[in-house]
Amino acid sequence: MDQDARDRIAESFAAQTMMATLGAELAEVAEGAVTITAPILPGTRQQQGFGHAGLTFSIGDSSAGYAALTMLPLDQEVVTAEIKINLLAPARGEVLKAKGRVVKPGRRLCVVTSEVFAVDQGVETLIAILQGTMVPVPRS
Amino acid sequence: MDQDARDRIAESFAAQTMMATLGAELAEVAEGAVTITAPILPGTRQQQGFGHAGLTFSIGDSSAGYAALTMLPLDQEVVTAEIKINLLAPARGEVLKAKGRVVKPGRRLCVVTSEVFAVDQGVETLIAILQGTMVPVPRS
Amino acid sequence: MDQDARDRIAESFAAQTMMATLGAELAEVAEGAVTITAPILPGTRQQQGFGHAGLTFSIGDSSAGYAALTMLPLDQEVVTAEIKINLLAPARGEVLKAKGRVVKPGRRLCVVTSEVFAVDQGVETLIAILQGTMVPVPRS
Amino acid sequence: MDQDARDRIAESFAAQTMMATLGAELAEVAEGAVTITAPILPGTRQQQGFGHAGLTFSIGDSSAGYAALTMLPLDQEVVTAEIKINLLAPARGEVLKAKGRVVKPGRRLCVVTSEVFAVDQGVETLIAILQGTMVPVPRS
Repeated sequence: MDQDARDRIAESFAAQTMMATLGAELAEVAEGAVTITAPILPGTRQQQGFGHAGLTFSIGDSSAGYAALTMLPLDQEVVTAEIKINLLAPARGEVLKAKGRVVKPGRRLCVVTSEVFAVDQGVETLIAILQGTMVPVPRS
Repeated sequence: MDQDARDRIAESFAAQTMMATLGAELAEVAEGAVTITAPILPGTRQQQGFGHAGLTFSIGDSSAGYAALTMLPLDQEVVTAEIKINLLAPARGEVLKAKGRVVKPGRRLCVVTSEVFAVDQGVETLIAILQGTMVPVPRS
Repeated sequence: MDQDARDRIAESFAAQTMMATLGAELAEVAEGAVTITAPILPGTRQQQGFGHAGLTFSIGDSSAGYAALTMLPLDQEVVTAEIKINLLAPARGEVLKAKGRVVKPGRRLCVVTSEVFAVDQGVETLIAILQGTMVPVPRS
Repeated sequence: MDQDARDRIAESFAAQTMMATLGAELAEVAEGAVTITAPILPGTRQQQGFGHAGLTFSIGDSSAGYAALTMLPLDQEVVTAEIKINLLAPARGEVLKAKGRVVKPGRRLCVVTSEVFAVDQGVETLIAILQGTMVPVPRS
């Protein structure tokens, strides 16, 4: 990936105010694979005190969307058409890490997955898997 | 529904700090049907300025989960096993409204759906549908 | 719907040899809504003797796809991009009935649902719900 | 896996008449991983002459279900609670091969995936991915 492609991802990420609200960061960007991390903040928890499914979903979805975007021309954006999440374990620990990946790129539809891990005192546990479809749209 | 059942939902909702972060409110609670609303805040947007998919998901998922909880004994909680969201239109407007509903209650699994609407100057548009599975667990 | 539109659906259905193998029939065709029925044949069962999930899926998916097709120009076909099924109860009885419906039509993507019922001695039970995405493609 | 565990899978598979109708065979059985193959028969096609999504789904779903069953006690069966399929490419070729895998085993719920490949003149193409939930039930 060249710098223009990397900049495009970073600019789009920075424009998503939700990512800042969640404390999320773009940790790794490679062609077809993007990792996003987010702490489990006091304000992003569910009723038992673990990370909220909405947090896990948000970074899982975004990691998959940006993975798709790395494989598209610079004048494109992506939007999520649909995505499904299976939650495997509570989001317990300090930080979540979502690893998005492109399974099938395409000009009309990109099929993507993401794996979300919780890191608790250095131990990573797979807590969710996502499978979805991203749609390229012209960059606004 | 009696007052104990209503209180249980309200207490669980209040304990989800994510709901406060998103500005979400419990708008209606009936047996098998719960509505949650949330404004599209400056801090919950995607890169084009519309509401973030993570916001839409969070209130859609929670409305479906609480709809399931209305049909369970008072000593139970629910967790999301899996849920899928199809996004139909941008989350444009002032507020989102998620209407969760139980399709099939059960002691082991509850199948649920949710419809999420965006309200823009009084006009409601369906922007997402969700279909998922909630699992009853003992209340902690 | 005019006769050309009806003929197009009937021709496409007849060309799906899988439908004949399953004994499936096109029961009702209206704009945005298609019903397909299929008997639970000796050869389409799972290990407990009920209708196979593959049977339920096949007619659920097809009813949703043809519902989408009713809303498209005559020179188009649809293919399933993705679909999810939640199975609610065993497929017990004589015949299954799948009611497909368009939730959001579109030139690029159509969002669809289907409800599948089992009919057992005249009593209908909802046994599955599906939610998915159909993609219009040029008719070959 | 011992012989009793293998026999249980083979017996259950043989009892699914749908598998025989589709010409499906149990190709490989290992702990947490099962492969099922099926020819694209004249009677299991869609309207363009490719393998029907119902065929792809049936063997994808069954491969994932039997993968789950390899990790359960001998007095258990599994049923599919829900599963989602993303179709990536037409089912073109002579035979389909579904590789089911357990992502997260469990006594109440097993999370599974499956990858389905089409084999066309010796070349394998990934045509579908599935992600779902299996539920253990007492063996009847």
